[in-house]
Amino acid sequence: MAKTLDFYFDFYSPYGYLAHYKIDAIAERYGYTANWHAILLGPAFKAVGSKPLLDIPMVGEYSAHDFARTARLEGVPFVMPATFPGATLAAGRAFYWLHDQDPELAKRFAKAAYKAAFAQGQDLLQLDTIKAIASGEGIDGQALEAALQTEAVKERFKRAVQASLDQGVFGSPFVVVEGEQFWGNDRILQVEQWLARGGW
Amino acid sequence: MAKTLDFYFDFYSPYGYLAHYKIDAIAERYGYTANWHAILLGPAFKAVGSKPLLDIPMVGEYSAHDFARTARLEGVPFVMPATFPGATLAAGRAFYWLHDQDPELAKRFAKAAYKAAFAQGQDLLQLDTIKAIASGEGIDGQALEAALQTEAVKERFKRAVQASLDQGVFGSPFVVVEGEQFWGNDRILQVEQWLARGGW
Repeated sequence: MAKTLDFYFDFYSPYGYLAHYKIDAIAERYGYTANWHAILLGPAFKAVGSKPLLDIPMVGEYSAHDFARTARLEGVPFVMPATFPGATLAAGRAFYWLHDQDPELAKRFAKAAYKAAFAQGQDLLQLDTIKAIASGEGIDGQALEAALQTEAVKERFKRAVQASLDQGVFGSPFVVVEGEQFWGNDRILQVEQWLARGGW
Repeated sequence: MAKTLDFYFDFYSPYGYLAHYKIDAIAERYGYTANWHAILLGPAFKAVGSKPLLDIPMVGEYSAHDFARTARLEGVPFVMPATFPGATLAAGRAFYWLHDQDPELAKRFAKAAYKAAFAQGQDLLQLDTIKAIASGEGIDGQALEAALQTEAVKERFKRAVQASLDQGVFGSPFVVVEGEQFWGNDRILQVEQWLARGGW
């Protein structure tokens, strides 16, 4: 059985977007499978007494510059989504609805959603955007829309967000490998070292 | 004339400590001189509405682990100072008093103070510790103690801290090279890339 690591991300996290390009390849290189978990940063900010980077004096201006500069260094496109920040509820609910049918499909949806948001600037807060992204992955948009209105699907995402907090996940991206926590796109290099060496 | 970059640090910043080992070598490799600037994180935290990492729920526990784990990866000793966090006023004042006589001496003092704090766990908030560190660098402890009691020296540090805020420095370590800002030990690799490529 393949070893696993956990990759937590918020759909409106610029650093989560940067990390999402790398995590699967790094995991696979060392015989791991990355389990993806959509979360919401809102409850995490509440738990730690923080707020979206762009809303913080000085840090906001720096971060906007750093997102784009780091994306250029990493060779990936970067724009800010039309609405940002915001609670990506529909995207998160869609992710788990798909995940419970087929984790790989959920991952493909997540990758498409990240690119729609941060490579194309699309508004992930609109249900229509989520449906269009899903359609692009061969998912039935009407079935998705119906599912997102059910309490079961809303509750599924809510429980996943709470579970992430219970496990000490307070940011995005956040990786847990064999109990070891790594916070931030900056730490993806350390995740790779950790897998390569089996810790240090 | 050598090109310069600015390296801002708080004496009780674990990530500043990690970065201090690297910044001069990186600068010199690309024909730069690093100008060191002691700051205080207290006023920066106030400006951005934050607080010391260890005082933040969840983030504190993670950070304590991350300081030590990153130090091990970077191959340097790491312990927490006897008193932490705290406002390193005496160390900062001593730094500028020395700096205005001989910037290289101030840098040697800063390096010795960082190692006393984070390699040996010494209490930088005690004047006696600062005097002992200074003595180890051949500095007259009594002259230092007398200087630290003067308004001129207190004011010198206060102005330097304010100047750092005015320039948008809100963390430690913080590097500015040709107007480009880099925050955190995580960004030292980007600083190196920036110097090597002349930007990207």
